Amino acid sequence: MRTKAAVAIAAGKPLEIMEVNLDGPRAGEVLVEIKATGICHTDEFTLSGADPEGLFPAILGHEGAGVVLEVGPGVTSLVPGDHVIPLYTAECRECDYCLHPKTNLCQKVRATQGQGVMPDGTSRFSTLDGDPILHYMGCSTFSNHTVLPEVSLAKVRRDAPFDKICYIGCGVTTGIGAVIYTAKVEQGSRAIVFGLGGIGLNVIQGLRLAGADQIVGVDLNDSKKSMAERFGMTDFVNPAEVEGDLVPYLVNLTKGGADYTFDATGNVNVMRTALEASHKGWGESIIIGVAPAGAEISTRPFQLVTGRSWRGTAFGGARGRTDVPKIVDWYMDGKIEIDPMITHQLSLEDINEGFELMHAGKSIRSVVVY
Amino acid sequence: MRTKAAVAIAAGKPLEIMEVNLDGPRAGEVLVEIKATGICHTDEFTLSGADPEGLFPAILGHEGAGVVLEVGPGVTSLVPGDHVIPLYTAECRECDYCLHPKTNLCQKVRATQGQGVMPDGTSRFSTLDGDPILHYMGCSTFSNHTVLPEVSLAKVRRDAPFDKICYIGCGVTTGIGAVIYTAKVEQGSRAIVFGLGGIGLNVIQGLRLAGADQIVGVDLNDSKKSMAERFGMTDFVNPAEVEGDLVPYLVNLTKGGADYTFDATGNVNVMRTALEASHKGWGESIIIGVAPAGAEISTRPFQLVTGRSWRGTAFGGARGRTDVPKIVDWYMDGKIEIDPMITHQLSLEDINEGFELMHAGKSIRSVVVY
Repeated sequence: MRTKAAVAIAAGKPLEIMEVNLDGPRAGEVLVEIKATGICHTDEFTLSGADPEGLFPAILGHEGAGVVLEVGPGVTSLVPGDHVIPLYTAECRECDYCLHPKTNLCQKVRATQGQGVMPDGTSRFSTLDGDPILHYMGCSTFSNHTVLPEVSLAKVRRDAPFDKICYIGCGVTTGIGAVIYTAKVEQGSRAIVFGLGGIGLNVIQGLRLAGADQIVGVDLNDSKKSMAERFGMTDFVNPAEVEGDLVPYLVNLTKGGADYTFDATGNVNVMRTALEASHKGWGESIIIGVAPAGAEISTRPFQLVTGRSWRGTAFGGARGRTDVPKIVDWYMDGKIEIDPMITHQLSLEDINEGFELMHAGKSIRSVVVY
Repeated sequence: MRTKAAVAIAAGKPLEIMEVNLDGPRAGEVLVEIKATGICHTDEFTLSGADPEGLFPAILGHEGAGVVLEVGPGVTSLVPGDHVIPLYTAECRECDYCLHPKTNLCQKVRATQGQGVMPDGTSRFSTLDGDPILHYMGCSTFSNHTVLPEVSLAKVRRDAPFDKICYIGCGVTTGIGAVIYTAKVEQGSRAIVFGLGGIGLNVIQGLRLAGADQIVGVDLNDSKKSMAERFGMTDFVNPAEVEGDLVPYLVNLTKGGADYTFDATGNVNVMRTALEASHKGWGESIIIGVAPAGAEISTRPFQLVTGRSWRGTAFGGARGRTDVPKIVDWYMDGKIEIDPMITHQLSLEDINEGFELMHAGKSIRSVVVY
């Protein structure tokens, strides 16, 4: 079939809107009509050329929601008409990782996904001239239609609006999941969130959901304060306005250090501050942000020997097919908010404008609606 | 009273055996006759002058066992005749740390202990001329008699031999506790232990106790192999004999990385190797060793984001008054071994010989018997 997509032709160039060919689903695959997709910093990271693993030409986008149109042979868990959220972290429920209680990093389709192809080693996308176009993060939601492995789709309720729940495909789950699934924050905890962008805001509402008593937000941009407060932030700190070192200031503000700290900046110096601002004896610091290639974190081992732990999270520790439908329920039940974070809605033709809004810091999330 | 002690007069000098004055126990304090004491690397670290927090003159030693001779006013949990193991990590059972489920770092006597004095700010030790001598780690087991806070003493069964259970005061608990209390290693796990000295051997027997299926020991000294095998090591790796990088070698040996890795070297480069040799998705790396002042650990944050966690342990995460008596039981019941690790027994007069044996790598543990 033919469909319309925004294609990343090469690193550093704007996406090009064009018609592309899409082959139908093969064994274990599913054809999905994407109804809406968010534009995430990870798409930007790859498009810019900064991602050393970025491949071109490709159809980016990994934060979508849509409807199943057709299933390939052997697909048993989905039927046409099902509403789905694509998963860049699959959940096969049979690999060593899926069967291990401490991780969500399913390896079933990992290797081929990283190469921009389906598990059989080929791409379903091509130009009208027949040249292959690569998939991206196993999703390629910047195409109106896409093909995914069955294990890379979470089936969700049909009454949830696509233009909001698409955000659960990455940002919402990454932030809330870091709190609920990775850190397992307890009622009454004190926490610090570094970076109040789209991920940081979702960490904050995750902390509110978990019943944290103190939720400190740290950002160099004062304009982030009011939105963060809306999602549950109790204290705002602009490091530029703190006299002296930031770590002792935050330790004092949290009465000895935070029970949990979260880095949502990707800056390795901030990651160190986050670890050291966590409480002696039991503080846990969770890295969410993606650092530039080659960057390293460091600290004195004494920080760990005296009881702090340093951890990380990918996709919020969520098992996609199991947890994403629950998060959709939380949204529909009003336990979490998404609407205020979707600051811009665009058509596919205007998708590059979404990247510009991100660069300018004007959007929390821009969503493309097909 | 007068007692005999090995006194650390100044950094870098041998201990001097002399008679010293010891004041009786004040409120909340206990007079203990030390029957045996181990000589630990931490004593050596302080005596050498490398410990930036080392104070002199002081009576070192923190790995002892003895008998209560007298209790001060208000002491309720001990009576004369009780057998005890001194604790450099107290357990008051009422501070914020003792009441927190995730830490053993009781803060009750921490500040004064670090200054070499009792909680009232004074020392019980002095020279026969009346000049004060400082306590060390709240224990000072290199004196035949010593005074400790009640909260710094674990009461243990009376049939356990002092010259063996003194080792539970530090090395045994640190190694076994890192496995049982800090890492909480599960049955069937794969683990790697870096450094096969006294701590490393106890990590190994802790792993055997926990039911680990694979226990890899890593040491540059081949002579460590046979003793480590006796305690449960299943695979030995000498990094000097590995071609290429050590991390992929260890990852391959453990079928994808170890579930748990332990650093018992204090070398920050080894700490990084330990983290990176742990399994993607769920590997936990525990730092036990004490690094030189100012040394830093580092890694790419990607190591954590893909599911590894970096933690540390002090006194094996054990709550001294609660857990040390249990470990004594484990020894008496034959669940753990201590005897083969006590390679040398000395009189107090020969204590400096114990330090020389340690330097020469000839001892696992030397014990002074009074």
